[in-house]
Amino acid sequence: MTSAPNDRRFVLTLGCPDRPGIIARITSFIAEFGGSIVEAGYYSDPDNAWFFTRQAIAAGTVPFELAELRDRFAGVAADFGPGTEWQLHDTGERRRAVLLVSRDAHCLHDLLGRATSGELPATIEAVIGNHPDLAGITEAHGVRFHHVPFPKDPAERGPAFARVRELVDEHDPHAVVLARFMQVLPAHLCQHWAGRAINIHHSFLPSFVGARPYHQAFARGVKLIGATCHYVTAELDAGPIIEQDVTRIDHADEVRDMVRQGRDIERVVLARGLRWHLEGRVLVHGRRTVVFS
Amino acid sequence: MTSAPNDRRFVLTLGCPDRPGIIARITSFIAEFGGSIVEAGYYSDPDNAWFFTRQAIAAGTVPFELAELRDRFAGVAADFGPGTEWQLHDTGERRRAVLLVSRDAHCLHDLLGRATSGELPATIEAVIGNHPDLAGITEAHGVRFHHVPFPKDPAERGPAFARVRELVDEHDPHAVVLARFMQVLPAHLCQHWAGRAINIHHSFLPSFVGARPYHQAFARGVKLIGATCHYVTAELDAGPIIEQDVTRIDHADEVRDMVRQGRDIERVVLARGLRWHLEGRVLVHGRRTVVFS
Amino acid sequence: MTSAPNDRRFVLTLGCPDRPGIIARITSFIAEFGGSIVEAGYYSDPDNAWFFTRQAIAAGTVPFELAELRDRFAGVAADFGPGTEWQLHDTGERRRAVLLVSRDAHCLHDLLGRATSGELPATIEAVIGNHPDLAGITEAHGVRFHHVPFPKDPAERGPAFARVRELVDEHDPHAVVLARFMQVLPAHLCQHWAGRAINIHHSFLPSFVGARPYHQAFARGVKLIGATCHYVTAELDAGPIIEQDVTRIDHADEVRDMVRQGRDIERVVLARGLRWHLEGRVLVHGRRTVVFS
Amino acid sequence: MTSAPNDRRFVLTLGCPDRPGIIARITSFIAEFGGSIVEAGYYSDPDNAWFFTRQAIAAGTVPFELAELRDRFAGVAADFGPGTEWQLHDTGERRRAVLLVSRDAHCLHDLLGRATSGELPATIEAVIGNHPDLAGITEAHGVRFHHVPFPKDPAERGPAFARVRELVDEHDPHAVVLARFMQVLPAHLCQHWAGRAINIHHSFLPSFVGARPYHQAFARGVKLIGATCHYVTAELDAGPIIEQDVTRIDHADEVRDMVRQGRDIERVVLARGLRWHLEGRVLVHGRRTVVFS
Repeated sequence: MTSAPNDRRFVLTLGCPDRPGIIARITSFIAEFGGSIVEAGYYSDPDNAWFFTRQAIAAGTVPFELAELRDRFAGVAADFGPGTEWQLHDTGERRRAVLLVSRDAHCLHDLLGRATSGELPATIEAVIGNHPDLAGITEAHGVRFHHVPFPKDPAERGPAFARVRELVDEHDPHAVVLARFMQVLPAHLCQHWAGRAINIHHSFLPSFVGARPYHQAFARGVKLIGATCHYVTAELDAGPIIEQDVTRIDHADEVRDMVRQGRDIERVVLARGLRWHLEGRVLVHGRRTVVFS
Repeated sequence: MTSAPNDRRFVLTLGCPDRPGIIARITSFIAEFGGSIVEAGYYSDPDNAWFFTRQAIAAGTVPFELAELRDRFAGVAADFGPGTEWQLHDTGERRRAVLLVSRDAHCLHDLLGRATSGELPATIEAVIGNHPDLAGITEAHGVRFHHVPFPKDPAERGPAFARVRELVDEHDPHAVVLARFMQVLPAHLCQHWAGRAINIHHSFLPSFVGARPYHQAFARGVKLIGATCHYVTAELDAGPIIEQDVTRIDHADEVRDMVRQGRDIERVVLARGLRWHLEGRVLVHGRRTVVFS
Repeated sequence: MTSAPNDRRFVLTLGCPDRPGIIARITSFIAEFGGSIVEAGYYSDPDNAWFFTRQAIAAGTVPFELAELRDRFAGVAADFGPGTEWQLHDTGERRRAVLLVSRDAHCLHDLLGRATSGELPATIEAVIGNHPDLAGITEAHGVRFHHVPFPKDPAERGPAFARVRELVDEHDPHAVVLARFMQVLPAHLCQHWAGRAINIHHSFLPSFVGARPYHQAFARGVKLIGATCHYVTAELDAGPIIEQDVTRIDHADEVRDMVRQGRDIERVVLARGLRWHLEGRVLVHGRRTVVFS
Repeated sequence: MTSAPNDRRFVLTLGCPDRPGIIARITSFIAEFGGSIVEAGYYSDPDNAWFFTRQAIAAGTVPFELAELRDRFAGVAADFGPGTEWQLHDTGERRRAVLLVSRDAHCLHDLLGRATSGELPATIEAVIGNHPDLAGITEAHGVRFHHVPFPKDPAERGPAFARVRELVDEHDPHAVVLARFMQVLPAHLCQHWAGRAINIHHSFLPSFVGARPYHQAFARGVKLIGATCHYVTAELDAGPIIEQDVTRIDHADEVRDMVRQGRDIERVVLARGLRWHLEGRVLVHGRRTVVFS
């Protein structure tokens, strides 16, 4: 389910130690002020007794503003035990994304097209490229493009990454999207953007970590290739997976065919994962994600 | 999610007019006696303001038996307005299925194999065939087989259907499965088994209703073929759909290839739809179904 | 398999009455001048004894030009009986496409992006819209946009269609793509562009022909929605199918969710079908297609 | 495409060094005696200049028997250069399979059901289990079951494997199927049955090699699980892949749910891979396979 554009909602996401009565507590809190729950997702992880929920409340049924809703809910959440984490956001406030790109255009074209068509629940605030190639199409969509050249020597890239960080942080984005950025983020940026930096990897992880996954897939002779959208963490291609998909290939497909067919999967997997993230549908849970899609 | 074998649950399913506070009312009721909700699904249909839920409560956290739980919940449900329907069942009570078959063996083999392996949350109480061909394999799985011959003239099949009805009703089954039965049920049986009679149709409905769907698919030149598991209603192949799936074909696939590939889809779609039905995951909603899978 | 950009080929497609020896005749012809067959597809339709083939010959192994190859092959094909049809094209000559659009942007964005990225084996020569909305993005990709307003009354659209025909025919395109054009082509244009006009329909045909297929799909309660790329013929949504695909939905998906998810399928199905058409991989065979993908 | 039961064919499979003229040579050979090619697959591997083909010739159009066809074709193949390998088999001669099983019943049930229904192009000659559990259902299908107990200590399993080898070799099978056998074959058996021993692994290889792949998949938080049918080689789970497929899971699926859903994939992937192998559609090519499906 998606939110209708004019259909403003307050979205609560929460993770806390599991015990009986939490759903009752939350939904009674909402019922007390006459709130109408439009979407509700629940999940209790039996392995470590943790509880997750996402509730979308019709904003029109809430007799006060988001700030007051937050204040009131804080009182409820205070009872939910150590480690409780929650957020409340207003779908009426447009979310912000910044994209990092290199030369590969397909994910950028796709995301710009979606943003322009209103398919993406966010504005693309800026695109930052380590090559200038994609400036033209970005600007044609009315989006600011920044070119930050990267030195060849990885050891000398510190200032370039610092500049990227600065440009990104100006927008305080809800999502920093590595749209085929092809650069490994340094640990300090993984840390700084934790839970907001999203990558698209062109393999069905955990197969074919690292460079040239289609070449690896060809060598192994797999019959399906895939793509993985995941949160960026300090360990390469090992962050929590948001979404994955695959497509069938056969023996006659060479690496260049895989690259072409893989693009169709990369586009869709990234767009889907990014939308879920922006709509507050993804809760990170150790190395796994809970996705209330 | 599936129930673990030893993991007894009380499962509530409910549909009622939608209004704020229903979830709070139900979950507070459960919380009051310390019940632990293991799985919860909710859906509010915005078109006709109807609310649906399925709650699985760990039986070990309920301090009384099913009958008393039913009595108590009846008091809650009484407030939910006209048209409210609900059920509470105990996963500890094995469900019962009866299968109707003809000569095609693949769905029968599959369901018998699943029942024997413990994959099906039901016992197969009996298999009834209008041909004797499948008696041997049925009995090899320790299941009773009844042969009810059908006259060639459809106008004379009344007594045969009466006999089938009698044999089925002896077991008061939760599911009457038309596992490639190839006979159109008369209206009185559709009525009598409403909500319990499940058919597998070998096309992606609503395409190719009626006889010889693979021939129809071949003639139209479609690039995917499918199967549909649906509740049986008086209108042929038009009942509420529980599950569907498809598989890719190409120009070189003749009708016999479609038949072969289609079987793989039929088996899985029927088994999946039947499992959801038996676990109380399917709520019928006019011509549509709500499936808390 | 796709052609590599620098990997020029002569592509032969042929359909003729089936009889033993045709493959030998064709491949011996190619072997005589030392031609290297890079890709070969064959299909014999047993129902009507018709034979189809597609052969891609490495251009570098052919000691003469396309015109002479055509002359020589004409001598071979002359023996293949009445009804034989064949073509020889040079992948070194870029193919031309013209797009017809309305207001829906997603297929246009996708095809322009693919053309710009070199993913589409054609240049987009022009885009013609019955609304001006998509002029900006078209021109940003360096493609000419023509706005041809359509009168509200269908009976008065003759001149508009005449103008569209004129604008299209200027480019003598290999493909006329109805990229969510939303207008039914008049019979004379279906005839005039027969085998070149390609439509994307937003349902899994033959289900949900005509208007508002997602509304039809919602009402029927299907569990998968799809899209179909097909040749345009005078009978609405009944032309030979080139490609189809589906995506899973559930009860919580409203029509607007189907519209959104459907777009991902429409984009990919149209792009795939169009690419196969442009590469000479699709042979029409009555109401069916042979696709050497 | 599949062979019709009454539609006897001689099937040629061949791999040889690639050079122009091979297809012409083979098809001219067939055309000379008036042979009708019903199915033809070709593949030239550009990386190592190797050529592969599979040709199915209608037996009724061949004026001599298989032995003579082999003799004559040997003369043709003699010209194809060093490393050429080819086979000719008669689909009229039923192929033979032997299954190795342990306690997991789902693949066995499925294959027995398919064999009984005529879906498998082979007879199951015998089933060998290291536990006796599956004797009953095997014998109900009229197939001989052999129980070969395995000692707990892997070091002491030599005699058990020797007995298995003996029992298998009695039938000189075209396929030795490890249908969830759960034992690692010793190197001498991998060698002895090279190209005939087929395993089903319950992951999407190369992810999750070895034991408990569903536990590994759960820990990594993947969004799809899969199964892989491959030839057995001395390196564990690293043999050439014949077929793979996947199914979607979500965060609520525990390991036992994966096990259940995975079975549906395992059954189909094994059945599909085995059928292709038995019909001579799979040519091994280093670590990859060419599959003319």
